[in-house]
Amino acid sequence: MNKELDRYGLWEGINEVIVTTLSALGKPNAAPIGMIRRDGKLMVRVYKGSQTYTNIGDTGLLAANMVYDPVLFVRSALSDVAEEVFAFIKTDTGEDFPVITDCSAWMLLRAEHNNGSNVLVAELHPIIGNINHQTIRPINRAFNAVIEAVVLATRYKVFVNDKYLSQIKSYSSIISKCGGSTEKEAYDLIFKLI
Amino acid sequence: MNKELDRYGLWEGINEVIVTTLSALGKPNAAPIGMIRRDGKLMVRVYKGSQTYTNIGDTGLLAANMVYDPVLFVRSALSDVAEEVFAFIKTDTGEDFPVITDCSAWMLLRAEHNNGSNVLVAELHPIIGNINHQTIRPINRAFNAVIEAVVLATRYKVFVNDKYLSQIKSYSSIISKCGGSTEKEAYDLIFKLI
Repeated sequence: MNKELDRYGLWEGINEVIVTTLSALGKPNAAPIGMIRRDGKLMVRVYKGSQTYTNIGDTGLLAANMVYDPVLFVRSALSDVAEEVFAFIKTDTGEDFPVITDCSAWMLLRAEHNNGSNVLVAELHPIIGNINHQTIRPINRAFNAVIEAVVLATRYKVFVNDKYLSQIKSYSSIISKCGGSTEKEAYDLIFKLI
Repeated sequence: MNKELDRYGLWEGINEVIVTTLSALGKPNAAPIGMIRRDGKLMVRVYKGSQTYTNIGDTGLLAANMVYDPVLFVRSALSDVAEEVFAFIKTDTGEDFPVITDCSAWMLLRAEHNNGSNVLVAELHPIIGNINHQTIRPINRAFNAVIEAVVLATRYKVFVNDKYLSQIKSYSSIISKCGGSTEKEAYDLIFKLI
């Protein structure tokens, strides 16, 4: 399994991906999640209260979407994403399951979970996947700052503590110095959505 | 030119690459540098006192190497890299020029520069390039933290101010939480080399 995970960009450590899930009523959801690969296992930890938590509990399925669009990271973390962001693929039981249309790759996973407490911890088992496109993606410190700011913004929404807001604002200079227009748009969007 | 730069991973904003250069005596050098793409131009700013500054002044050439090995980022920022890291390609005048063997892509560039002051500012013009391999590279917050720590470590070496050291140390928890073995090795190496 390890070589296949490598190929899909799920490497050792925590991989920030967009997880797509389906509700019991058939509504797709997208949220950024850190997918943990350690000791040959792929895992997620999802906190109670999120749609992702409910959906994984209901369906036992999720898809990891390898996405490098900072605007989509912000939007899926802090609001609902538009329906047209999703494409539907067939699972092995013939049902439709949402993935992100413009992802570099997606992998559908079965979640072997235990959701008794406030955190759903699931070991993940690959079912099917697809690599859409591979690119040479630059290292851009502003892109990386958007990811940090998104993490802080989700904490700010839960705890409403101004220390998170000032930490988000501390990235402003690196965004304007190192960012392209996409990073700047994503960073500005954070302030509109929190 | 823009589509070609996109394909090589040199996007709008500042792209952190490893720049290889050649001294007048034929010795290769590698150093991480932010390559700036704005308004259709590709530029670098290189500070006086570095080998990269001297070499670009002497030869008018540099190569951008798109590299995602955090250990190589640390090593090239804070020390000399081993000779075997370099491969030599032929320039259009038939001379050998160093690139990084294990890079995802390299692009040889002619530097139209003005090195009157303490900063060499050069507009860069592509000569030749090669894409070695494209992968799905994950977003890993520990990898990103290594890049930030490298920036701080180079400042620490110049200014020997402990504030940089404590900022580098502040990344320790994210490295151990999110990193794979490569990010951990790279982070530990910073403390050995500063």
